[in-house]
Amino acid sequence: MAGSESELIERYFRGLGAARPDVALGIGDDAALVAVPPGAQLVLTTDALIEGVHFLAGAPAHSLGHRALAVNLSDIAAMGADPSWALLSLNLPRADDSWLQQFAGGFGALARQHGVALVGGNLSRGALSITVQLAGLVPEGAALRRDGARPGEDLYVSGSIGDAAAGLACLRGQLAAAGAAAQFLQQRFEYPTPRVALGSALRGIASACIDVSDGLHTDASRLLQASGLGAQIEVAELPLSPALRAAYGAEAWRAALAGGEDYELCFSAPRAQAEAVAAAAHAAGSPVSRIGALLRGSGIALHAGDSLIQFSPPGFDHFRAT
Amino acid sequence: MAGSESELIERYFRGLGAARPDVALGIGDDAALVAVPPGAQLVLTTDALIEGVHFLAGAPAHSLGHRALAVNLSDIAAMGADPSWALLSLNLPRADDSWLQQFAGGFGALARQHGVALVGGNLSRGALSITVQLAGLVPEGAALRRDGARPGEDLYVSGSIGDAAAGLACLRGQLAAAGAAAQFLQQRFEYPTPRVALGSALRGIASACIDVSDGLHTDASRLLQASGLGAQIEVAELPLSPALRAAYGAEAWRAALAGGEDYELCFSAPRAQAEAVAAAAHAAGSPVSRIGALLRGSGIALHAGDSLIQFSPPGFDHFRAT
Repeated sequence: MAGSESELIERYFRGLGAARPDVALGIGDDAALVAVPPGAQLVLTTDALIEGVHFLAGAPAHSLGHRALAVNLSDIAAMGADPSWALLSLNLPRADDSWLQQFAGGFGALARQHGVALVGGNLSRGALSITVQLAGLVPEGAALRRDGARPGEDLYVSGSIGDAAAGLACLRGQLAAAGAAAQFLQQRFEYPTPRVALGSALRGIASACIDVSDGLHTDASRLLQASGLGAQIEVAELPLSPALRAAYGAEAWRAALAGGEDYELCFSAPRAQAEAVAAAAHAAGSPVSRIGALLRGSGIALHAGDSLIQFSPPGFDHFRAT
Repeated sequence: MAGSESELIERYFRGLGAARPDVALGIGDDAALVAVPPGAQLVLTTDALIEGVHFLAGAPAHSLGHRALAVNLSDIAAMGADPSWALLSLNLPRADDSWLQQFAGGFGALARQHGVALVGGNLSRGALSITVQLAGLVPEGAALRRDGARPGEDLYVSGSIGDAAAGLACLRGQLAAAGAAAQFLQQRFEYPTPRVALGSALRGIASACIDVSDGLHTDASRLLQASGLGAQIEVAELPLSPALRAAYGAEAWRAALAGGEDYELCFSAPRAQAEAVAAAAHAAGSPVSRIGALLRGSGIALHAGDSLIQFSPPGFDHFRAT
């Protein structure tokens, strides 16, 4: 046993992430104290990773540290906000120094990259699960919500989709892919790239935004429902990685629409903003693809050229599934 | 099975707690959006309850809803802050409508009592654990920290201590107490009273503050260590409930010093503030007892009248214990 809760927190988590001048009091008191600048709204989110649900038993601790923060960064990115302060609640079956060091390494590297300070948390004995709470800042009134899309606008998605779910299927032995492809797909599952720079670059450009955590079809449907719209999506425009195409062949688009854990951004923007979208994507270093257009009404019409395609996603709901 | 994660969140958690005008966007988007008033610092904390560690299997869901929020309110209270917005991360083995309804009832009642809005969260399948993140507000520079105590000041604790640990011992069948006493002690464990009004009333009066979650001896030691001081504590002044005295007899003070889960406030204040402390306690409706005095040096000297008593707490550390 590696020490008490306080000793472990001291050893692995105090000072983790970025040093921020707006943190008056970090780990070590009853709560953290931070300063919110005038004119900013506070953005709050939480997400959890649970062994056997969101990751396989024995998953590398470094990737879990990365992913636990990444999934929260992705929510902040989807609001167009800048991430600031994180809290970490870690339930561990036993205090394992090597595991904790790896975990803190993965978490800390991503936190530093995005300027996030870890300001508090707790460590308890329990079945392995990781809950992160992340706060961010956004100029007042500038947040990207789900309900701002308008008919006639374009629908976009960042990066490539379906890779993470395919990577998980490889890890589970449910999908056979060639070495390099399997490695790429697994990397996309274990080390998702939250599109933080893209989210903030899209402020004032995108009309609505959501992060793709439960599969593009499901999450795009949520954006459409919140905005009271439907959409036509062109299957040929879905951004599919060569690895996904290699693994699934002609059915790759199905895997892309259904797969979860992408942590890409799906967003809408007026046609007149198409160049601004491209410029934001370029500045953020995130590829972006126009995948369709928003229509009055509801639902998603999937087109493959002139043909309409039937598709309903299996979903990625942890309660529904059981 | 009761529905998807989104349906369950919609049914039990949307709009739970107080309605606050500073919430621009609550449950239902990628993250919540709230407004922080000028001149306020943001206070952030998180704490978790895990089945088999912080509560017994089969514990009533209503009390778990209360406790999960109460332990976080207590951290906010210990900073002298006003609680504002909560996030809830719930891992449940299965979606049980009756359990969720009871849990939401306990959580919601306490949230409304303290003006807290539930603005986000997530629900996953997993071993039962409950993680709450709570944000609060405190006027800039007015937070009660652990490190502000000075030699010669008085040391106080609110309420009565040791009851919750005794209540847990009753629930575990490790302590026999008469019906009414057992009921009182168990109630103190299952429904702790976070001293929120007391914490904010002590702003500008107390010099340092901590909440008593791991036992008075342990938590007072943390305050002393952070302030670089020692203390003399008078055993006869420890606030012990009649039920605790009945259950433990002459050893009740040991149980009081060692027992965890009290969620009372332990704080220091200059002698000249004694009347202000009493007035704050009266205004907040929280009894407060002066239990000792702060000294230069380190450690705790326990006095019973003229005698010095040896005591070292067994501790309440979930990792150390295993």
